[in-house]
Amino acid sequence: CRGREGIDSKGGQAYAAAAMSLVFHSAHPHIPTLRADVRLFQVAGVSWFGGGCDLTPFYIDEADASSFHSFWKAVCDKHQEGLYATLKQDCDKYFYLPARGEHRGIGGLFFDDMEKGTDGATGDGGFDAEAFTRDVGKGILDSWVPIAEKHRRNKFSEREREWQLLQRGRYLEFNLLYDRGVRFGLDGGRMESIMVSAPPLVAWKYNVIPEPGSREALLVDVLKHPRDWV
Amino acid sequence: CRGREGIDSKGGQAYAAAAMSLVFHSAHPHIPTLRADVRLFQVAGVSWFGGGCDLTPFYIDEADASSFHSFWKAVCDKHQEGLYATLKQDCDKYFYLPARGEHRGIGGLFFDDMEKGTDGATGDGGFDAEAFTRDVGKGILDSWVPIAEKHRRNKFSEREREWQLLQRGRYLEFNLLYDRGVRFGLDGGRMESIMVSAPPLVAWKYNVIPEPGSREALLVDVLKHPRDWV
Repeated sequence: CRGREGIDSKGGQAYAAAAMSLVFHSAHPHIPTLRADVRLFQVAGVSWFGGGCDLTPFYIDEADASSFHSFWKAVCDKHQEGLYATLKQDCDKYFYLPARGEHRGIGGLFFDDMEKGTDGATGDGGFDAEAFTRDVGKGILDSWVPIAEKHRRNKFSEREREWQLLQRGRYLEFNLLYDRGVRFGLDGGRMESIMVSAPPLVAWKYNVIPEPGSREALLVDVLKHPRDWV
Repeated sequence: CRGREGIDSKGGQAYAAAAMSLVFHSAHPHIPTLRADVRLFQVAGVSWFGGGCDLTPFYIDEADASSFHSFWKAVCDKHQEGLYATLKQDCDKYFYLPARGEHRGIGGLFFDDMEKGTDGATGDGGFDAEAFTRDVGKGILDSWVPIAEKHRRNKFSEREREWQLLQRGRYLEFNLLYDRGVRFGLDGGRMESIMVSAPPLVAWKYNVIPEPGSREALLVDVLKHPRDWV
């Protein structure tokens, strides 16, 4: 309901919902994890849209970070000025682990509860949330595949693979401790559908603190202090 | 405070707390995970005790389950008639994943908020919660080491190791989704101290359903329907 007119918060009205959710956990530590979704909820003749696309690298490649964010800024710019800045900030805010003081990745876009024709970042009425959400859905693969292609033939070390498994632990901590979708889904009895987003293999180790100046330390620094990548 | 006299729920009174917590994650899939703790909280001249010890096997060995529970029943029987039955039931109740309809392991003892001299399972006044908690602390290794010794030289297969890593996922799901101590600790900023209880390596895989009649299927059956092991 979220304060909209014509909707009975006690329930009982017909509704429709559709969603697509993707997570790619690469076995290669140079290839960032990609998470994306688009979703639609309809009740009483009103539609809301939500979705997003964000990147969780194990090592910072500034060119990757920049191309990913530039891709999504271009998608946003097509629909509304200032939209990218808002959704980038919302993404950084959402994928955050307060207990670690770290963000989950280098972000991207995150949006929720966008209404067709009346919403968007500025609420100026000219925004088409449905068209924007379609473009997000269509953009997912294009934002990530070039990054995966660029790194897939790189050699990597055991140490890099171990670091990937440890960082995947943060991914899982976020999902189980903080993610709204997981919390919501727990009551629905589809635990396998929720946990299919988990990485296939995850490691924990006590108090791993990367060497100052290492590429691992750079990642942690970026996770603690989100950057502008465009 | 929990309704006790002499305690100001607004806080400010001097208090003391002490705790010991142990988790053994064996690399061998025939050796069950052991989790145990004892703890003490004192305020306004009153002491409460808590603790427990429980077993999370990857394969059911009925002799192990029986020896573990019999060990703890003997410790309980020394202190109060009926105590084991109560704490065994409380343990089954606590280590439960509602989203899976599965208990986390085959249980053991779980107790909380026991007061010296006036508490215990029957509340008959003759119970010494401090002495009982000391005996739990002293018993931890004796309840588990013989089981670990019995299996440590067994050969095991890749399939058994994979099953162990998958079952460890349930262990982690419980800790992050449901454990009271983890939830409480998240605000304290000691995330590494919390996550040190996590298994070193964990796997997830979509919708693994063990073959009917397999040892894996037996485990799932026992996790869904806790048994009496004594």
